[in-house]
Amino acid sequence: MTTAALNNEQLTIYDFPVGPYPTRVRIALAEKQLQSKVKFELVDLYKGEHKRPEFIEQKNYSGTLPVLELADGTLIAECTAITQYLDRLDGKPILTGTTPLEQGVIHMMSKRAEIELLDAISVYFHHGTPGLGPSVELYQNPEWGFRQRDKALRGMHYFDKVLQQQTYVAGERFSMADITLIGGLVFAAIVKLDIPTECKALLDWFERMMQRPSVASQPAFIGQ
Amino acid sequence: MTTAALNNEQLTIYDFPVGPYPTRVRIALAEKQLQSKVKFELVDLYKGEHKRPEFIEQKNYSGTLPVLELADGTLIAECTAITQYLDRLDGKPILTGTTPLEQGVIHMMSKRAEIELLDAISVYFHHGTPGLGPSVELYQNPEWGFRQRDKALRGMHYFDKVLQQQTYVAGERFSMADITLIGGLVFAAIVKLDIPTECKALLDWFERMMQRPSVASQPAFIGQ
Ligand SMILES: N[C@@H](CCC(=O)N[C@@H](CS)C(=O)NCC(=O)O)C(=O)O
Ligand SMILES: N[C@@H](CCC(=O)N[C@@H](CS)C(=O)NCC(=O)O)C(=O)O
Repeated sequence: MTTAALNNEQLTIYDFPVGPYPTRVRIALAEKQLQSKVKFELVDLYKGEHKRPEFIEQKNYSGTLPVLELADGTLIAECTAITQYLDRLDGKPILTGTTPLEQGVIHMMSKRAEIELLDAISVYFHHGTPGLGPSVELYQNPEWGFRQRDKALRGMHYFDKVLQQQTYVAGERFSMADITLIGGLVFAAIVKLDIPTECKALLDWFERMMQRPSVASQPAFIGQ
Repeated sequence: MTTAALNNEQLTIYDFPVGPYPTRVRIALAEKQLQSKVKFELVDLYKGEHKRPEFIEQKNYSGTLPVLELADGTLIAECTAITQYLDRLDGKPILTGTTPLEQGVIHMMSKRAEIELLDAISVYFHHGTPGLGPSVELYQNPEWGFRQRDKALRGMHYFDKVLQQQTYVAGERFSMADITLIGGLVFAAIVKLDIPTECKALLDWFERMMQRPSVASQPAFIGQ
């Protein structure tokens, strides 16, 4: 199936527009110029709609957003998986690498940006802050949350070092790994975890990322 | 680069042979018939060798195994990334899908097997059991560990349901997602979390997996 073969709105994304993870897929869609093919369906996280049995049973067992639904009802959850799918649709990958080496390094750095930053901040949000509020956050482990916040802060220093040596997170080309790190910084802003001023390379990189229309146009940045 | 172009021992894997994550890459190598190209370098987890500054600085910032090192010194950490790389080396992927849809679904199900089972048991091991021992486990959060154990148990029921409907974790073909779930069950055995007897489809699938030489031959299963 090629992009050209996709009719309008053949794809549905279960979405929360300002959410850090949905933002990852929204950036990928913009980079691939696929937005017009997509219908966005709001799932209200603050109302806990993603934890309702019908969402968990019918859309995503893990109870998270985003989820991509194809015209035939096939569901793809997980940002990495959705990005891999979208990027390959037209046979011209620009986000997930072409050579085996590029693919391996991009997947590694994207996963690392999850483990060391984005996912760590997510845990902090849900456990060390009020998160989505008392009616959604039924169990919290603040101590674990604070540990993850500290891990994320160390993660910023790590990515700063990486970006002192190369232009993008996975090398000399923009990729899925940059998008994942952007997701991490979106979440950092939500929990008010500032990028340390000494992380100049990271701050520079972020400024460059914000010059990309695919990034600057996101609800997470323009507010909404 | 094609497989044929790889000389013997052009690849180094930093390894702990019975570890659940290293087992994932070992199975992938066996499926791709690449074992003879690899030099395995032991990193002793019980001695905390993976947490030493030189390992973290030079091999893998996240301080985990396995890590793949190429002849030119390039490092690829993260099982998913290593598998993606190895599977594409010869241009004939058999583990990570060929069509965009296959790739998306395999990445989703593999990630889900991590989130809902393998990674959850890993957290339980490190936080709810003595883990690698007091000199390595410098911080433990038992309550979080036990929550993750319970999540993993629910995960087994989820994968049982999946496997009632299809032959393999990501559909009708063996893939990276099966390997990830096998990793989860390797770790479940280590922490003595039995597969519930009512999870018949999961048990059946596991028996079928154990008939694959790539799986049955692993140190995690034959002991060593
Ligand atoms: N591993 C998932 C994580 C997605 C995720 O955590 N999404 C957030 C929205 S920004 C969510 O659904 N959080 C709700 C919750 O965890 O309760 C992915 O990569 O897609
Ligand atoms: N996300 C990593 C996880 C790897 C992992 O946790 N490996 C285990 C070995 S089985 C490890 O190094 N554990 C040591 C520790 O966390 O202290 C991957 O997929 O490769």
